[in-house]
Amino acid sequence: MLTGLLAGVVAQLALARIRDAYAETTVTVLVPFVAYVGADHLRGSGVLAVLVLGLYLRSRAHHATTSQGWLLGRSVWSYADFLVGLSRRDDIVVVAMSCVLVTLLVQGLTLAPSTTWLRVGSEDDDSRSVARLRREAATTALEEIRPIEPEHLADTVRRAAVLQYEGYVSAQTAMEEARRAEASENERDPAEQLRKVLRRATDVERQHVLDSRRRGTVSAEVADRALRDVETRAVRDLG
Amino acid sequence: MLTGLLAGVVAQLALARIRDAYAETTVTVLVPFVAYVGADHLRGSGVLAVLVLGLYLRSRAHHATTSQGWLLGRSVWSYADFLVGLSRRDDIVVVAMSCVLVTLLVQGLTLAPSTTWLRVGSEDDDSRSVARLRREAATTALEEIRPIEPEHLADTVRRAAVLQYEGYVSAQTAMEEARRAEASENERDPAEQLRKVLRRATDVERQHVLDSRRRGTVSAEVADRALRDVETRAVRDLG
Repeated sequence: MLTGLLAGVVAQLALARIRDAYAETTVTVLVPFVAYVGADHLRGSGVLAVLVLGLYLRSRAHHATTSQGWLLGRSVWSYADFLVGLSRRDDIVVVAMSCVLVTLLVQGLTLAPSTTWLRVGSEDDDSRSVARLRREAATTALEEIRPIEPEHLADTVRRAAVLQYEGYVSAQTAMEEARRAEASENERDPAEQLRKVLRRATDVERQHVLDSRRRGTVSAEVADRALRDVETRAVRDLG
Repeated sequence: MLTGLLAGVVAQLALARIRDAYAETTVTVLVPFVAYVGADHLRGSGVLAVLVLGLYLRSRAHHATTSQGWLLGRSVWSYADFLVGLSRRDDIVVVAMSCVLVTLLVQGLTLAPSTTWLRVGSEDDDSRSVARLRREAATTALEEIRPIEPEHLADTVRRAAVLQYEGYVSAQTAMEEARRAEASENERDPAEQLRKVLRRATDVERQHVLDSRRRGTVSAEVADRALRDVETRAVRDLG
């Protein structure tokens, strides 16, 4: 149990330092193996160590990961979970895959930080094109919805669908304008200000969901699905 | 090359029939192996077959996948890509992992459809709680932004951030109301109507992005990032 807790603290510290989604996911895959083998080596229970680790990370690690890391880890873990579920009858395969993964991941952690640098420049350059394309696409959707005849679409439904797209287009347009606005004398860069206020808003949203889960007013599954939306918007608007 | 094209058509047909994200992702992982081995067996070039398959699926398969399948596949593939990139120096590991994966996936495809059924009921029950939690979280974010002093926040920036959250909350509220509205005599179920109109709007958005990519007005990378947003909203609002 102590091994699991220790691994949890180490993992949390590592996740808080790493700012790359791929490296973060690699940590979440690697640490359980280390905890298992470590506890086993110290004649403790490997299974118990992994369980404690899981509970610790579940309750504490969310703040330590980036939005991208959380979303990527969620997908990779849920797919791994699906694969493991299918192969329960075939333990040898799981063990073999684990060995291969650990080999890969030890290499991964040593090289991961260096790979990030290569992408930063072009991502920044593309952001405006992405924002424009998203607005264009949403506008074509709006043009598709508006002319639908009233006999085919109830008023409440039309209003909801139009509001969904209008809200999206106007918010994205306003954000683009704010980003492009020139900084006045006594103000910092507006793009940076927008980033900061949206980050603060995202933190508040995330905290609300995590609090609701902790208080038990929503199930872990419901909280997870709400978090997916919060983190996805964070990735979209904060990059 | 013919093997690759054939594999592409088969994969597209399979993806169009399968409506489960995990099974779809499994197809996209499995088919390249089959194409490679098949071409090799027929004394063709395995690499060329996989290349042709990739080009074919890239241009044609998007419509055949579900939004969830596309998002899951994107994450799993990008993480696999990251792992393979790291292990380039160690081909044996890649081959070993491939063998394990294929073993798993052959089992996976035979069992995948049966696993879906277990989750459908509870997902439907949770949807309202998720929607409520998302609105609550966004409202707390709005309450965080509004009282920020004007000297700390430029007007354009405040307007953009508030619009972002207000648009989100009011659109989500309107959608929830539309879903709950009772069907009048000559109208179908409003929830079903909303679903239908949003699906149509999503199709138009997706088509716009794919057309832009095909015409070359945006890069594949930009189109990919815009699609991620379209598919994420589709998953959120269409389930």
